[in-house]
Amino acid sequence: MTESETGVGGRPTLESVAERAGVSRATASRVVNGGAGVRAALREKVERAVAELGYVPNLAARTLVTRRNRAIGVVIAEPEARFFSDPFFAQHLRGISRELAAADNQMVLLLAEDERDHERIGRYLAGGHVDGVLLFSLHRSDPTPETVHRLGLPFVIGGRPGWPGAESDRDLVYVDNDNRGGARLAVQHLRSLGRRRIATITGPLDQTSSVDRLDGYRDLLPDGDADLIAVGDFTADGGIRAMTELLARRPDLDAVFAASDVMASGAIRVLRAAGRRVPEDVAVVGFDDVESIAAWTEPPLTTVRQEIEEMGRLMTRLLLRRLNDPGASAPSSVIIPTGLVVRESA
Amino acid sequence: MTESETGVGGRPTLESVAERAGVSRATASRVVNGGAGVRAALREKVERAVAELGYVPNLAARTLVTRRNRAIGVVIAEPEARFFSDPFFAQHLRGISRELAAADNQMVLLLAEDERDHERIGRYLAGGHVDGVLLFSLHRSDPTPETVHRLGLPFVIGGRPGWPGAESDRDLVYVDNDNRGGARLAVQHLRSLGRRRIATITGPLDQTSSVDRLDGYRDLLPDGDADLIAVGDFTADGGIRAMTELLARRPDLDAVFAASDVMASGAIRVLRAAGRRVPEDVAVVGFDDVESIAAWTEPPLTTVRQEIEEMGRLMTRLLLRRLNDPGASAPSSVIIPTGLVVRESA
Repeated sequence: MTESETGVGGRPTLESVAERAGVSRATASRVVNGGAGVRAALREKVERAVAELGYVPNLAARTLVTRRNRAIGVVIAEPEARFFSDPFFAQHLRGISRELAAADNQMVLLLAEDERDHERIGRYLAGGHVDGVLLFSLHRSDPTPETVHRLGLPFVIGGRPGWPGAESDRDLVYVDNDNRGGARLAVQHLRSLGRRRIATITGPLDQTSSVDRLDGYRDLLPDGDADLIAVGDFTADGGIRAMTELLARRPDLDAVFAASDVMASGAIRVLRAAGRRVPEDVAVVGFDDVESIAAWTEPPLTTVRQEIEEMGRLMTRLLLRRLNDPGASAPSSVIIPTGLVVRESA
Repeated sequence: MTESETGVGGRPTLESVAERAGVSRATASRVVNGGAGVRAALREKVERAVAELGYVPNLAARTLVTRRNRAIGVVIAEPEARFFSDPFFAQHLRGISRELAAADNQMVLLLAEDERDHERIGRYLAGGHVDGVLLFSLHRSDPTPETVHRLGLPFVIGGRPGWPGAESDRDLVYVDNDNRGGARLAVQHLRSLGRRRIATITGPLDQTSSVDRLDGYRDLLPDGDADLIAVGDFTADGGIRAMTELLARRPDLDAVFAASDVMASGAIRVLRAAGRRVPEDVAVVGFDDVESIAAWTEPPLTTVRQEIEEMGRLMTRLLLRRLNDPGASAPSSVIIPTGLVVRESA
């Protein structure tokens, strides 16, 4: 680690600190940079010299020299409430943070809820504090992908980007699960059980994961009744509201495919409160297979498994590869297959 | 916003970009910095010039000039598993992020689970990417407070620091809830209900919040039986394990004070599975009053309320005050009073 200093405006330099402390420049640098391996006695001398001279470490200079912070920004476009209540994010971040830790890169978590947050994040990213960016849970109007693109920061997106032209943009690298195929598996399973009035609870339709799951449902039910489709928002409350709506509109429904486990757990609560047995009267299939929910609902949830942690790991590996070898051709996007996990709810 | 450039090593400068694009230096700077307010046609010209010249923005230079990133690091010394499963953190962060957003400062979230994470965070903080640091959920051996101190970064701690000498260090500013007083309220309440064999489930004893709550319990039960004390870890599983232990050791216990709501919910599950009625056979009091747990256990939880979001807000305000007026005398630490919320479990 080197510490460059310019002495701009007569400011004390690292050399003057080293000289005053009677240590080598390397030792002074190590102390100033918070590094380990310096004996307490020497450290104290350096610290005293820093204090006496009023030395301010020229920290940003390091970035100018190495152009590498060994830090990756992770931008999550969700309010804290959802970020914390949906275990999807914990699993996703675990994949990212483990992969970053293995490569000794710092994970810098940035949450964006509204437009001002996105602006502020854009400013922070423009400040050169991270080497690359992982973006996920994007909504259609989120401005951050464009900002990152303009700044020339390498980035990888979690989930298929949905804005116009995204599909043909070779610079956009994303990792996604096969949402559409997974939804088809869910509906296929419900049909194989003899269910004929299969409802669905979608996620917010400004996210491609929601749209793709709805498309998969429609692939198998092209002449489906619009009354059997209710829009949710990936929260338990949203699942409760949507299920209540569906029961009011179509009391004869015999199955529900919810586009997330969290919403499915809300739906099951409504069904039980309405006296419907799950799965005898209404079969329920979720999506995600998040550890802490799917196996613990009553009855345990049949669901579409997506490899959430693996998705985080893959995104990270693609980004690091891009950073370590900027000359290489852009990696392609990756779609991870989904599978059905059959438990008791369907 | 200024963009300094040096042309080190013959690299293209912002001036050369502006010249090639046929725009002013200010416009080129705005485009390069991701700022808004530049017409699409001009932006394209600048972007083309950037691409053609291979210009790399001298981003870190800005920090050298302003020495202010308008960004605050929030270091949380917990594994993701706990960070996401205990709603305490969501509420705490909500307070911090709202206060930071109001002051237009970016929240930069850094999670530390093991020693290598702390080292990496130390390096990132030394890189000058944030103006100050909020630290919370510290364990006794966490090295980050010392690192931050050595780097000269202003910081505020959430929770009383527990290392030797911390109490007398005037530079250490912290915000805490009255953990000891709150624990006393809980035990007092249980005694007023006529309970005589009051057990407690503690948090991990390398955290002062756990130690202080245990001290409050002991204040009222100075001759208490050690068999009535079980060490937990602030997780539901920890609460389950500790309650199982307590029941095995003292099947005659008639009350439990759990040092967190999450652990109390685990304890209630064990008690019900063992055929004990709550509160008739065993009264249970928790600690925290987190929104999504205390009111939803069966029966609803009597608990010690701490102002979690307010704690986050206060920490942030103290830090921002320190940043905005470095000459002012260090603010004092703040202890927020706790109160008892009586519901049905005791």
